[in-house]
Amino acid sequence: MKRFEAGKYLDLFRRELLERVIPFWLEHSLDRECGGYFTCLDRDGRVYDTTKFMWLQSRQVWMLSRLYNSLDKNEVWLDAARLGFEFIRKYGRDQSSGRVYFSLARDGRPLSIQRKIFAEVFYVMALNEYSRAAGDREINKEAVEIFEKVIKWAADPAALGRPLLEGQRPSSSLAVPMSILWMAEQLGRGGDEKAFQPFIDNSIKGILLHLKSEKKIVLENVAPDGSLLDGTNGRLINPGHAIEAGWFVLEEARKTGDREVKEKALKMIEWSLEKGWDKEYGGIFYFLDAEDFPSPHLEWFMKLWWPHCEAAYATLLAFRETGDKHFAALFQKVADYAFSRFSDPLYGEWFGYLDRHGMPTHTLKGGAYKGFFHVPRFLLLSIKLLEEIA
Amino acid sequence: MKRFEAGKYLDLFRRELLERVIPFWLEHSLDRECGGYFTCLDRDGRVYDTTKFMWLQSRQVWMLSRLYNSLDKNEVWLDAARLGFEFIRKYGRDQSSGRVYFSLARDGRPLSIQRKIFAEVFYVMALNEYSRAAGDREINKEAVEIFEKVIKWAADPAALGRPLLEGQRPSSSLAVPMSILWMAEQLGRGGDEKAFQPFIDNSIKGILLHLKSEKKIVLENVAPDGSLLDGTNGRLINPGHAIEAGWFVLEEARKTGDREVKEKALKMIEWSLEKGWDKEYGGIFYFLDAEDFPSPHLEWFMKLWWPHCEAAYATLLAFRETGDKHFAALFQKVADYAFSRFSDPLYGEWFGYLDRHGMPTHTLKGGAYKGFFHVPRFLLLSIKLLEEIA
Repeated sequence: MKRFEAGKYLDLFRRELLERVIPFWLEHSLDRECGGYFTCLDRDGRVYDTTKFMWLQSRQVWMLSRLYNSLDKNEVWLDAARLGFEFIRKYGRDQSSGRVYFSLARDGRPLSIQRKIFAEVFYVMALNEYSRAAGDREINKEAVEIFEKVIKWAADPAALGRPLLEGQRPSSSLAVPMSILWMAEQLGRGGDEKAFQPFIDNSIKGILLHLKSEKKIVLENVAPDGSLLDGTNGRLINPGHAIEAGWFVLEEARKTGDREVKEKALKMIEWSLEKGWDKEYGGIFYFLDAEDFPSPHLEWFMKLWWPHCEAAYATLLAFRETGDKHFAALFQKVADYAFSRFSDPLYGEWFGYLDRHGMPTHTLKGGAYKGFFHVPRFLLLSIKLLEEIA
Repeated sequence: MKRFEAGKYLDLFRRELLERVIPFWLEHSLDRECGGYFTCLDRDGRVYDTTKFMWLQSRQVWMLSRLYNSLDKNEVWLDAARLGFEFIRKYGRDQSSGRVYFSLARDGRPLSIQRKIFAEVFYVMALNEYSRAAGDREINKEAVEIFEKVIKWAADPAALGRPLLEGQRPSSSLAVPMSILWMAEQLGRGGDEKAFQPFIDNSIKGILLHLKSEKKIVLENVAPDGSLLDGTNGRLINPGHAIEAGWFVLEEARKTGDREVKEKALKMIEWSLEKGWDKEYGGIFYFLDAEDFPSPHLEWFMKLWWPHCEAAYATLLAFRETGDKHFAALFQKVADYAFSRFSDPLYGEWFGYLDRHGMPTHTLKGGAYKGFFHVPRFLLLSIKLLEEIA
């Protein structure tokens, strides 16, 4: 491999973020009439559904606030963050239970609520980051209060109303320790690191239970003691998710200097990308079965934008932490695939969904799960790293 | 078009059903140790997950019983039906609520329950058809009792525990009147027709609210008065489902001789097949948006086995009812696509999932939603019609 040309990627990523991604969302997603954001945007930004999905409302508040806090004190970004913040603060929670809704009508009236913790997770992230952008620590109190509830709910799977039935074997989903780690890292920023470090340490332990070194895989679901679960659910691999968990852990190991944890995080990234990469057509599969049995997911073979964002940043971080050119080569492979397949040369932003061959199956730029989040987060984090490298 | 060669299809369908479909399931799905059926079967019949999904347990009991009742008094089929019947009777329902579970562990312990009526619908079907096969009318009492509950639940969407939130607009899903029509037709068989006819009439009215003649489409979701709903949900088209509803209604119109209903049923089938057929690569899309906006379903472009089963039978029935060679040509187009793409020449049974180009994406023959149901039902019903035509 030639010398790694950090400057070239830095330039590409800056232009992508500032000229092609942020403008798309600022132009098309802001609902100045009812507040909050439209996220169901077609290729050219046309709104095809006005539902306000709370995951994406909160993620957009977080992302805009983070851009403001860490890249540029751009008042346009802060103003756009405020539009979403005021909307989720006013309409996002059920007043009687305190739960965060999953989706709202355009005007904020509630549509649905899930028996899962993730709407709360993104809400916590949004409030904390926005409180820093707005310079109002008072807002953060609500974030901490919900964080404490999520910790309790995560320890008691029946707490959100899903019945516990006797045939169920207790199971740990990778998403839960990842969410707690992510929230704890966020809430600890700016002075509260010590208070939240035990949650981080505990989450890392939980995440590493999913790493199966003898098979060189990361499983999505394991028993609470880390042992294998039977069947399709126990064999599920979500390579993009495992890679994302890998860089979460790697960033923590970078701070603490824990070499054993660092090695494990690098393995999570390397093995999941190796297992998840489609050797025939390129790109990262959405789901796999650890023993190559059929996936229960119809869309297992599709290439989604976000695993490629996660993998590009994770491999860049791994390169930064190790200096190992193998990771630089992986980064280039993933970034080159992603930019050539997902990035829309005509209207900006990225397509979300490709078939196995890498052709878009959907013209949309946003929907119920794709918003202003994975692409700008990956670009922002990568720009910071590339600045260090270059 | 040449003269329709009913005899050739009759021969093909008989061999497919008796030599390639039924033997696959009898050989691989019967769990003689714990009772019930394995449905997660790989291409060669290997079990890749032992979960017992109640939809598929009940559908297999129904299908085996129906084959026994209407094709051949084969004791092997009745014995296999009994294996499933005894399992679902023993383990299928929650004793406290009376609800039917969604899934069970291999040994019958409960795993999950849905806030939907469909596990009950298939359970009702199974008990009624099996009671006739076993010559035990006592069994049918439980079916009628659950049917009455389902009618109540269908009229009160919050009854199953899903919260009614203030932003929700009341919505009618095509699946609900279809399910009630299907159960009422089943329960009315053999003497009780009159008692169940009002449910059938009412369901047909409910189904026909989804037919939008001005746009030549059938919508999956409409307001209870038939008016259009906003957004992605209101524009959803599931062509296979609409075609299935069409032949349900056409069969009823055939009995009552109602010409207006018959014409509408024919339009449901014709328009949905026209809209749903992939003009570029062939096959029926899984989901579409009525105004061609992006689908919220990742797998919208895939070709699933069951819409092709439904469309082949529906067009054959339409041909039988009208003598219109246009429907014979549609039948041939769908049947030829289905047999050449889904039917597995090596191990029998059909593949379930193809990519847009018609190549299998999964090797499985069964899973959480594909069992011993759509393929044999389509073949059995078609054989009966082809015998009339030939």
